[in-house]
Amino acid sequence: MNILIKNAKVLVYENGKLLTKDADIAIKGNKISQIEKIKADSGFQKIIDASNMLAMPGLINTHTHLSMVLFRNYADDMPLFDWLTKKIWPLEAKLTNEAIYKGSILGIAELIKSGVTGFLDMYFFADETIKAALETGVRVYIARGLTDEEEGKEVQLNETRRLFNEYHNQEGRVKIYAGPHAPYTCSPRYLKKVIELAKELDIGIHIHLAETKKEVDECIEKWGKTPIKHVFDLGLFERPTIAAHCVHLNDEDIEILAKSNVSVAHNPTSNLKLASGFAPVEKMLKAGVNVTLGTDGASSNNNLNMFEEMHLASIMHKALNYDAVSVPAETVIKMATINGAKALGIEDELGSLEVGKKADIILIDLRKPHLVPLNNPLSAICYSAQSSDVHTVIVDGKILMENYELKTIDIEKAMHDAEDAARKLIGA
Amino acid sequence: MNILIKNAKVLVYENGKLLTKDADIAIKGNKISQIEKIKADSGFQKIIDASNMLAMPGLINTHTHLSMVLFRNYADDMPLFDWLTKKIWPLEAKLTNEAIYKGSILGIAELIKSGVTGFLDMYFFADETIKAALETGVRVYIARGLTDEEEGKEVQLNETRRLFNEYHNQEGRVKIYAGPHAPYTCSPRYLKKVIELAKELDIGIHIHLAETKKEVDECIEKWGKTPIKHVFDLGLFERPTIAAHCVHLNDEDIEILAKSNVSVAHNPTSNLKLASGFAPVEKMLKAGVNVTLGTDGASSNNNLNMFEEMHLASIMHKALNYDAVSVPAETVIKMATINGAKALGIEDELGSLEVGKKADIILIDLRKPHLVPLNNPLSAICYSAQSSDVHTVIVDGKILMENYELKTIDIEKAMHDAEDAARKLIGA
Repeated sequence: MNILIKNAKVLVYENGKLLTKDADIAIKGNKISQIEKIKADSGFQKIIDASNMLAMPGLINTHTHLSMVLFRNYADDMPLFDWLTKKIWPLEAKLTNEAIYKGSILGIAELIKSGVTGFLDMYFFADETIKAALETGVRVYIARGLTDEEEGKEVQLNETRRLFNEYHNQEGRVKIYAGPHAPYTCSPRYLKKVIELAKELDIGIHIHLAETKKEVDECIEKWGKTPIKHVFDLGLFERPTIAAHCVHLNDEDIEILAKSNVSVAHNPTSNLKLASGFAPVEKMLKAGVNVTLGTDGASSNNNLNMFEEMHLASIMHKALNYDAVSVPAETVIKMATINGAKALGIEDELGSLEVGKKADIILIDLRKPHLVPLNNPLSAICYSAQSSDVHTVIVDGKILMENYELKTIDIEKAMHDAEDAARKLIGA
Repeated sequence: MNILIKNAKVLVYENGKLLTKDADIAIKGNKISQIEKIKADSGFQKIIDASNMLAMPGLINTHTHLSMVLFRNYADDMPLFDWLTKKIWPLEAKLTNEAIYKGSILGIAELIKSGVTGFLDMYFFADETIKAALETGVRVYIARGLTDEEEGKEVQLNETRRLFNEYHNQEGRVKIYAGPHAPYTCSPRYLKKVIELAKELDIGIHIHLAETKKEVDECIEKWGKTPIKHVFDLGLFERPTIAAHCVHLNDEDIEILAKSNVSVAHNPTSNLKLASGFAPVEKMLKAGVNVTLGTDGASSNNNLNMFEEMHLASIMHKALNYDAVSVPAETVIKMATINGAKALGIEDELGSLEVGKKADIILIDLRKPHLVPLNNPLSAICYSAQSSDVHTVIVDGKILMENYELKTIDIEKAMHDAEDAARKLIGA
């Protein structure tokens, strides 16, 4: 279908800078074919009047555990270790294909409604999340979570291989990652196997790194080096890597991340809520690290709202550095869009509104009291906008939400199904 | 009008604890007359079906400069001093009655839509903000901003007296405060005059205190003590005081605040965005200080969203204290409701849903993907809910918003008028 978006304020990306201009956007098939004033309306099957709307690239969530929406607000305000061992792990042990599917559909509904067009997931029963993404139209980058296994058994590694063979590049919307959980749950021997597998399949790696001070201290005690140095020495960063969290880093760690072209998924809400700490984003950016944004799972957030992450990323580092200029709005919007695309190795196709790129576009309704007067649109996106201002979502040239209405998901059913699945896991 | 709210999940306040129960709420006139299952629907002029909704007390925003919505997103990502001197002050010099009125209406629209039923304002042309509040139905607590005046001239003090005579207690919805801006803009001599005036009128004081490190350092250099100790020694805390910010405090400051029954308006977004720092909320709470929540003005936020403030207050102190249990959801909801009422000396009438209290009630629509499954309602309010989930707002027994529609404000006109006013101030 060819779509014409008319009269928008368009967030364009020119010479590395984000700026807005008043224009129309033509979508031919799954690609952006024009961004300019377009006179002729013919040849389009669909015309969207985007007066008083801002068109921007779909947001890319580079770290989540999608189906954990089922555990949303189930356990909060408790110490991390109790939270994991007494609450989360016992529930995860009971997860089923059905629960993951239902959680994924609800999670995707939340993502679409908040302007996310692609997400990087690490969890279990990945088939179900992929199935949900294929059905609903979003892009999914996905790693089956890998933890050390009994010698000889390679169930998880084989599952990653099977997922790759079965789904990689399907509909141009699925990409498989190797997902070693973390250095504290994967031995060096196992991490090497994972790296070998990633080389064999030519895929990237998604891993949690340096999330808590405890993790770093224990890693130094056990291996004599920080988690970053530890996995670097094992050769993990020879694969394109997206490292989640990176909260506790020393200068050498940051240098390693930068020179190894590792992308970092910054998860501000989760880091704060779990009392992990404040990631040194300003330092990473200065060193040239590609910093992106993620929500983490909804059980440590407790939603999947990238506008909240943008907001938080844009303000917390200012206070942390006593510098009101630190991590400005434009930088944060890049983190949520083009940097995410770079992290995933798809910046030639996605992450910005440019002619020739794929049409992953969201429209922000500017006619809301909290966005008036508009003054500076980039500031407005970061400091004022809400996920509920996302009016329309297009992925790969297909409309997934229009005028706040989801087109590929029955939202009442999705909520009911997820409640049902949660009830079965949690009880009563 | 008598209103019956049926089938709600009601956030009640019992023995100092917040908990939810399934109940109906009867409103007779401007008061809550019953919270229980109510059989007879007769005697009510209006019945609201609140199935799948949470009823909670209206939020109280204890620090804002309402009409600064006009400067929203006008100047960001710049050093504080440049922001003030090059951007904000030149615009403020051009403010008019008309601009303040238009800004106030837009600001109130934003407040109502995000569940705020009363706010404490400090700014100029207070008549206009009061007029806007009286017209639109919200509660306004308001201080004309006071800064040192030329000896002999007492224009601002006289204006405070006039405002008191003209509006104090009008419709039971207006309360006048004395509003000395800050110790660095008011001399000790002037502060003493303000205290005298507050005593004379028997009103409270609203002031900015210890917002930045610079302010504290300069105060110590000039007066040999911290801002808290400085104004305490001047006798300011003999009046009921709401101190905004209180970011940079030592242990003695906290002790003074606690023993003087000073209420603190914590403004997390503003403190982070302006790079002021992280207020020691955990310490203040432990010392028994009554901590409340505010948005500050929309030019340093950049919206008036108390759900964002609750979210931020509930997560940032966890990371700051490396303690996932710090400042839990229940505490934060109290900060935004009953603590606000205590600060304003109205806790017998407002701040919680209790029989006999005034009917300031908001309904949260729980049928949103990011609120499903609900699991824990208190967590949901803090960690997942959005201002856009506020479905209905009742103040003093009158419906100001129903089913997301404002009843006392023409929102299109309000946005248009505010844009017009901003254009006149800012130009093009």
